Amino acid sequence: MRQKIRMGMAGGGPGAFIGAVHRMAAQLDGQIELVCGVFGRDPEKSRRFAEELYLEPERGYADIDAMISGELALPPEKRMQFVSVCTPNHCHFPIAKALLEAGFHVLCEKPLAMDSAEAAALEQLVKVTGKQFCLMHNYTGFPMIRQARSLIAAGELGTIRKVNVEYSLGWLASPNAGKQAAWRVDPKQSGISGCMADIGTHAQNLIEFVTGLKIDAVSAELASFVPGRLLDDDGSVLLRFDSGARGVIFASEVATGEENNFILKIYGDKAALEWHEQDPENLILRSNDAPIRILRRGWPGTGEAAALNSRLPAGHPEGFIEAFANIYRMFAEAVRSDRPGDYPSVADGVAEMRFIEAVVANSNGNEKWTKIER
Amino acid sequence: MRQKIRMGMAGGGPGAFIGAVHRMAAQLDGQIELVCGVFGRDPEKSRRFAEELYLEPERGYADIDAMISGELALPPEKRMQFVSVCTPNHCHFPIAKALLEAGFHVLCEKPLAMDSAEAAALEQLVKVTGKQFCLMHNYTGFPMIRQARSLIAAGELGTIRKVNVEYSLGWLASPNAGKQAAWRVDPKQSGISGCMADIGTHAQNLIEFVTGLKIDAVSAELASFVPGRLLDDDGSVLLRFDSGARGVIFASEVATGEENNFILKIYGDKAALEWHEQDPENLILRSNDAPIRILRRGWPGTGEAAALNSRLPAGHPEGFIEAFANIYRMFAEAVRSDRPGDYPSVADGVAEMRFIEAVVANSNGNEKWTKIER
Amino acid sequence: MRQKIRMGMAGGGPGAFIGAVHRMAAQLDGQIELVCGVFGRDPEKSRRFAEELYLEPERGYADIDAMISGELALPPEKRMQFVSVCTPNHCHFPIAKALLEAGFHVLCEKPLAMDSAEAAALEQLVKVTGKQFCLMHNYTGFPMIRQARSLIAAGELGTIRKVNVEYSLGWLASPNAGKQAAWRVDPKQSGISGCMADIGTHAQNLIEFVTGLKIDAVSAELASFVPGRLLDDDGSVLLRFDSGARGVIFASEVATGEENNFILKIYGDKAALEWHEQDPENLILRSNDAPIRILRRGWPGTGEAAALNSRLPAGHPEGFIEAFANIYRMFAEAVRSDRPGDYPSVADGVAEMRFIEAVVANSNGNEKWTKIER
Amino acid sequence: MRQKIRMGMAGGGPGAFIGAVHRMAAQLDGQIELVCGVFGRDPEKSRRFAEELYLEPERGYADIDAMISGELALPPEKRMQFVSVCTPNHCHFPIAKALLEAGFHVLCEKPLAMDSAEAAALEQLVKVTGKQFCLMHNYTGFPMIRQARSLIAAGELGTIRKVNVEYSLGWLASPNAGKQAAWRVDPKQSGISGCMADIGTHAQNLIEFVTGLKIDAVSAELASFVPGRLLDDDGSVLLRFDSGARGVIFASEVATGEENNFILKIYGDKAALEWHEQDPENLILRSNDAPIRILRRGWPGTGEAAALNSRLPAGHPEGFIEAFANIYRMFAEAVRSDRPGDYPSVADGVAEMRFIEAVVANSNGNEKWTKIER
Repeated sequence: MRQKIRMGMAGGGPGAFIGAVHRMAAQLDGQIELVCGVFGRDPEKSRRFAEELYLEPERGYADIDAMISGELALPPEKRMQFVSVCTPNHCHFPIAKALLEAGFHVLCEKPLAMDSAEAAALEQLVKVTGKQFCLMHNYTGFPMIRQARSLIAAGELGTIRKVNVEYSLGWLASPNAGKQAAWRVDPKQSGISGCMADIGTHAQNLIEFVTGLKIDAVSAELASFVPGRLLDDDGSVLLRFDSGARGVIFASEVATGEENNFILKIYGDKAALEWHEQDPENLILRSNDAPIRILRRGWPGTGEAAALNSRLPAGHPEGFIEAFANIYRMFAEAVRSDRPGDYPSVADGVAEMRFIEAVVANSNGNEKWTKIER
Repeated sequence: MRQKIRMGMAGGGPGAFIGAVHRMAAQLDGQIELVCGVFGRDPEKSRRFAEELYLEPERGYADIDAMISGELALPPEKRMQFVSVCTPNHCHFPIAKALLEAGFHVLCEKPLAMDSAEAAALEQLVKVTGKQFCLMHNYTGFPMIRQARSLIAAGELGTIRKVNVEYSLGWLASPNAGKQAAWRVDPKQSGISGCMADIGTHAQNLIEFVTGLKIDAVSAELASFVPGRLLDDDGSVLLRFDSGARGVIFASEVATGEENNFILKIYGDKAALEWHEQDPENLILRSNDAPIRILRRGWPGTGEAAALNSRLPAGHPEGFIEAFANIYRMFAEAVRSDRPGDYPSVADGVAEMRFIEAVVANSNGNEKWTKIER
Repeated sequence: MRQKIRMGMAGGGPGAFIGAVHRMAAQLDGQIELVCGVFGRDPEKSRRFAEELYLEPERGYADIDAMISGELALPPEKRMQFVSVCTPNHCHFPIAKALLEAGFHVLCEKPLAMDSAEAAALEQLVKVTGKQFCLMHNYTGFPMIRQARSLIAAGELGTIRKVNVEYSLGWLASPNAGKQAAWRVDPKQSGISGCMADIGTHAQNLIEFVTGLKIDAVSAELASFVPGRLLDDDGSVLLRFDSGARGVIFASEVATGEENNFILKIYGDKAALEWHEQDPENLILRSNDAPIRILRRGWPGTGEAAALNSRLPAGHPEGFIEAFANIYRMFAEAVRSDRPGDYPSVADGVAEMRFIEAVVANSNGNEKWTKIER
Repeated sequence: MRQKIRMGMAGGGPGAFIGAVHRMAAQLDGQIELVCGVFGRDPEKSRRFAEELYLEPERGYADIDAMISGELALPPEKRMQFVSVCTPNHCHFPIAKALLEAGFHVLCEKPLAMDSAEAAALEQLVKVTGKQFCLMHNYTGFPMIRQARSLIAAGELGTIRKVNVEYSLGWLASPNAGKQAAWRVDPKQSGISGCMADIGTHAQNLIEFVTGLKIDAVSAELASFVPGRLLDDDGSVLLRFDSGARGVIFASEVATGEENNFILKIYGDKAALEWHEQDPENLILRSNDAPIRILRRGWPGTGEAAALNSRLPAGHPEGFIEAFANIYRMFAEAVRSDRPGDYPSVADGVAEMRFIEAVVANSNGNEKWTKIER
């Protein structure tokens, strides 16, 4: 009987939205089996939640050290092979570090760490240990995002001139936005930025993933609209790319009424493309000399880059979980083969931290442009 | 350690689109475990496919009798509890019959049988055996379809006057539409109707599910546009409901360029609603005295009926697999509790066969209206 | 100084929605000048309304005879050249007849007459008098409708198989729908049909205009949902075309919440097109082997048929008035040159009456299909 | 016989897109009559074009002085009352000045002048002469823009926090963009800015019109992507408002494939609205506690502000010309009553020039923010 890849979790206890997504995504294709996790700091609660998840109760651990020693005590063919880290931000670094040092592969939620120094240390550790590492930027898993990247790489847009990305949510428009929100606006758990770290980095990461360009300098204004909030809940950033292209990121968590409105528009000198996360099956292509074309997941004219990341025929909507699952599928293969797959790396996590630091510094200062360290 | 519900499959071998969907949907929530299946008529192939699915190879059976006897030989806590039947249509009846008689619960793809006599026999058998039975009409699992039903039940649309349903695909527009298509246009495997049985019944079922009305009589024209095709590949049906409401079903599998364009429009004397399967997160509500309202899955103003069938916050698209999984989640609960859940029943399967028979009879005859037997 | 074409009006007095549209449309391009009209049966009111419209007050006439004799008394270079007839339906025939016999060109609102006998008489009269005659079917004036017709004529869709047209409004959902509605549901003013004559004929006309096919037989159900209403307020019609194509018209004036939801979907064996009156700048083209294409008015890839009926660059929305004005522009040219233009003719008006008569007969009877007389 | 308001034109000769729009818009409601114009510098050509427009040929003048003296020589009841100025930018100031000084009312295309000094001089002149003056910002004439303004004024959005405006076109993506483009990228005819003056000012004006807020400071980057181009063809501007609100304008004329993609998103602490110029009949309203509402022109729930600027029932699309015509209708009333109407004023024209100057200065410099002079 063939063995599935065995996964542990750090975080994702009762009530955590993203933890449940990780579980559904990891198991969607039937190749990964959840075997254990740290589902809370209270040993009894973690145990009980493990049981609820149909796991052996004793593999519901109370902290990362317990999980590491517990799993190392098991025979290799039963032991977890990688851990999915989906705790609040400030735990990413110490947990990922401990796991890598103990010889486990790691898939880690973004942002990688609390600052670029931590991030760089982690990058070094990945090199030294040779373990597989994936930074979970789930939006890179959408089939039509892969398709977009492939079109740009093939030169279909020509030279990229302008990138316009909007990411707006309304969930933090009021002071009381619930438990899920609390840690995201607490500097101790989130780091130096709120909105820009939480969603602005999705924009930055996706732009670089899709275009292959690197952001060279930023001019930014972060704002905090809700009284008493310690971190930014809104921000706009002008972008200069290494290639000479320009761009704008408009990110907000106080955009009243917006659910998860993430829109990517990329203009080249030959053609342009547009993608909406809330309508992810379409990729809109425009040019100055032909009708609008809408490429659809699963339909002729949409290429292999999308097909490889797709499970259903066209017209049978896929969504967020499937995109997430694409990353897991690639990471399972990476664990199996011990060769990295085509997903955001620890280096992308370092770049992301430097982007945040540059944006915050620029927003606090008087200079027009701040370069991003590479 | 808690036990998941154990599922067997009949059908869904290598290359079957809908079989893979059944597996992903069944396992999405981590409550159901696939343990065995008939994945093909060749014992070696079925065994190999079981292995590919991380099952014990010997639980890849070559026919339904082997599966029944093989599973009955296992201890109860290991034995499959229900079977998901996703074979071509003509096998639904004999397989479901054998399983019920052997004491297993059954989840069966639509249409229930090859004719209404078989269907009625199955209905009787379900009563006699007392086993749980679910007719898989996956579209009834969409959160916003549940929301639509709930709005209508609460009287928000007033008295329903008109129902306009369109279901069009282009995949059979050419004579050679591939292997998936072959059995669907073969009367021996599909029954007396092609397009109307394949997708028209989705329309009929969803209309009755959402409105609570029953179709009383039909006036229909089936057509077969591709030369040499033995079954209808297109059809339109005028509907009269028991309540006095009227309707139209427009179904086609030769609607060139359409992917899976399933649109439901329901007009009451107070308000109207519209839903598109390809954009399933929206439910559009219209009235004569207020702005258009778009209810969104996960957003305030959308009620419990949707929330209970939803996994993610608004703006994080859910799709086809999640809708499918909602039915499985309810059926797992039915198996666990031995009480039927809120999904299409064997009786709905009988109604569906009578609808097809009435449509075919009317289309072949000269009378204006044909009543549907109840 | 060059002379504009001089227009009179019959109907379109104070408060008449469509009368105001006729005036705006006629004058949009600055080639037609309104010079007189019958704006009401009360001489003083008609006179006052003429004055309000900046006309010579004495050219506001109280009936068609007064207008004919009044205008004939004027020198030819001042006299009206054609009359736009936009009265309730039952006046179309006598007024158009009088005008043709007096030597004036006529542009007449649809439906042409109260029955096909009247319509045929008018067709004969147009032949005999040699006057120019335009049946105002404004939807044929939309640029992207012209484009659709041109694509079909060029064979881009291949052989047409199915036509699915929906035209739904909610304005008559309640018993009291205002003054504009009153005459439309009165058999004395409207004829033998309400909804089907009012909007179903738009569907029938546009289908024949765009596809070039002729409807050969119908199977219909008309309904009257509002108690006490004497004419149909809803109807569905199955269509058989002379070519073997099939179709459906779904028309309703009790489709609560719908404004003017006129949707045309045409499926050929090579490709398909879709057009929405409420979003008229787009023509959606689908096929089984390429991405969706959206042809836009004014944009490359959209051809001459649209360009000739367009005034603005792409992205500067044109609408209903402009479409209407396209018909007027062509009719002005017809009056100037005394040669008919590319717009619906008196023969189309006859076909339209025969369509209504067949639909009503079929709906009242028991036979499945009723042929349309040609 | 009542007299229409008599209009002259400066500019808008053969081939000028916007000139034709001005004529159609001015005459749409039948209240304004075009009587004369300067349609080119060549007397014969201007005369011929006047004739083509059904004017007295001698009222096709070759320059503004000829028009002024020619018209002053006519009896008052025949003489033009106002002039519509739609020349290239550098002529706006001298022509408007001459007309005001000669006692004529003026409707002038934006931008008002070549710099803020000229603009301020014109503002002064309007005060001194007491003549009516309208700055044509046509987008302020859209019914749903009026509706948006009215909702904000009524507090329905609460305190405005963020404004996100995108205006992108692709027409200048290549070096050779045709004759209409030539003067727009020539500093001598256009002034110190290209894209930002041409379309960025539409964004700035519409933001201030709709929200009632004033932009206080800008941080900008202008770019010129096409080699050899002397003025900006793209730009992004971060905005700070006097109220503390923030915003972004993203404007581009090299956004390949975009037609006239002008999108306005305004977020308040209670609700948010969204409007698309290419889909102008909708106003999308979002909040954190209710379904999305789509207000439609002409439909219940949309208020008087839209109704007053609307001509057709809902579902009969109005567009660009009608919006333009709304401004003309108000200006005709202003000329008739000698009281200013509700449209952009000469003061708005001054504000617009100062905005451009601040943006250009900021883009050329190193300081983060540049205040806009008031």
